Amino acid sequence: MNYTGLFEKVVKKRSFLCVGLDSEIEKIPSFLLKKKDPIFEFNKLIIDATHQYTVAYKPNVAFYECHGASGWNSLEATANYIKKNYPDIFLIADAKRGDIGNTSKMYAKAFLENMPFDAITVAPYMGEDSVIPFLSYNGKWVILLALTSNKGADNFQYHDEDGIKLFERVLSMSQKWGSTDNMMYVVGATRAEMLKDIRKLVPDHFLLVPGVGAQGGSLAEVAKYGLNSHCGLLVNSSRGIIFADNTENFDKVAGEKAKEMQSEMECYLAQHKLI
Amino acid sequence: MNYTGLFEKVVKKRSFLCVGLDSEIEKIPSFLLKKKDPIFEFNKLIIDATHQYTVAYKPNVAFYECHGASGWNSLEATANYIKKNYPDIFLIADAKRGDIGNTSKMYAKAFLENMPFDAITVAPYMGEDSVIPFLSYNGKWVILLALTSNKGADNFQYHDEDGIKLFERVLSMSQKWGSTDNMMYVVGATRAEMLKDIRKLVPDHFLLVPGVGAQGGSLAEVAKYGLNSHCGLLVNSSRGIIFADNTENFDKVAGEKAKEMQSEMECYLAQHKLI
Repeated sequence: MNYTGLFEKVVKKRSFLCVGLDSEIEKIPSFLLKKKDPIFEFNKLIIDATHQYTVAYKPNVAFYECHGASGWNSLEATANYIKKNYPDIFLIADAKRGDIGNTSKMYAKAFLENMPFDAITVAPYMGEDSVIPFLSYNGKWVILLALTSNKGADNFQYHDEDGIKLFERVLSMSQKWGSTDNMMYVVGATRAEMLKDIRKLVPDHFLLVPGVGAQGGSLAEVAKYGLNSHCGLLVNSSRGIIFADNTENFDKVAGEKAKEMQSEMECYLAQHKLI
Repeated sequence: MNYTGLFEKVVKKRSFLCVGLDSEIEKIPSFLLKKKDPIFEFNKLIIDATHQYTVAYKPNVAFYECHGASGWNSLEATANYIKKNYPDIFLIADAKRGDIGNTSKMYAKAFLENMPFDAITVAPYMGEDSVIPFLSYNGKWVILLALTSNKGADNFQYHDEDGIKLFERVLSMSQKWGSTDNMMYVVGATRAEMLKDIRKLVPDHFLLVPGVGAQGGSLAEVAKYGLNSHCGLLVNSSRGIIFADNTENFDKVAGEKAKEMQSEMECYLAQHKLI
């Protein structure tokens, strides 16, 4: 999927919602725990209830990896289920990998070749040769950490060389490595006001924006400062949707929450004359 | 295991060698491929042949993850085999994880609780709250990326604010998060000359030094600039040991290569009056 293809999905769904599948076993409804693979069963019901409002899903790999091999089976089953039943979905592995070249190549293989992910989040600390191997798959994307939504973002990401902050350097330098067709950036919604300046550096790129909802970011602000002529945003919500309810109705409630966000997004898309 | 405990292992083994288990399936001797779990069989033979010269093992998680759930089984089997048969070994998961707090907590659980790793490599880009969850396990260690051995290290790690480079800021700031008993740093051997200045910032901490051998770093230089009063070094070699030979004698040859490195390390330890 390329830049235009992704924008077409946004227009079709009238949404730029990404649902984060941070499917923590302790938080999923207890009646699912007797199933053979509770995490996959949970995801399946969430996906069936939310897919029509959603452009992307983003399993957070840590919540699978913490269960060892069985967690990897749940992750793989989830990815395959999405691609089989909803092939239009943009599928993101939130893995935050990054290592020397021959190692990054193996991580890329794990997610972009052996599993059907369209994109993977990558940490930029080790630089160009740690990122490039993820860009060698046609139609697949790197989502590079730029300005994250957590408090610790202040420690290093604002480190300033001659007026250029580290996250700004990440944004400008990495544009030589990929294009708007295979590279996007993580920019936390808790820093929505920064989107105005960030758009000067990356006017066209898609941004993956976590931190709306549970982490306190505002969708209205993100849309105001972040939307561009091709939408250019995927806004993630995890806990606010998938754990909105923990009864047998959890999937229905998740669908309602996703629909609420989609409706709000539809307004912003219309206001910006994108639909 | 704490700082003093790790130094005791170094003295006992007369070595500060870490063997990197970058066990790439394409490179392991072909006669092992008919085994049920070739990667584990390969590791087992390498470990049996090298453990007496080695303080630490460091499986590179990417080379397991790229095989999905079965790769995780190989990783877990390897970790358990080491801890059962050679409990004195310091066991490092080279995973380079790091995410917002509740996610890092899950990664920590995966490696430090569900698997018997003593330490995990962590990427610092997301700052304090992405690192702290890994430090909450008594006797376990974070190995934070500071100055890596790859070419891309130049892109961001040298970003300079008022004379303080990013990797220096990582070294100084992170000392507030952990101590010499639970925090060490990755410093690439390809930057051995930098160790002199790095030792001014972290005189006491252990450093994990990759990049000797295949990547071109010199053990003599690393020892010269990096050794401190408690050794303070773990020097990793992967391909130079584990893939030194690919016949049925591969383990014997790996043992010889490990012994060569151990002998050289023993000289440096003696020169520095540490043994």
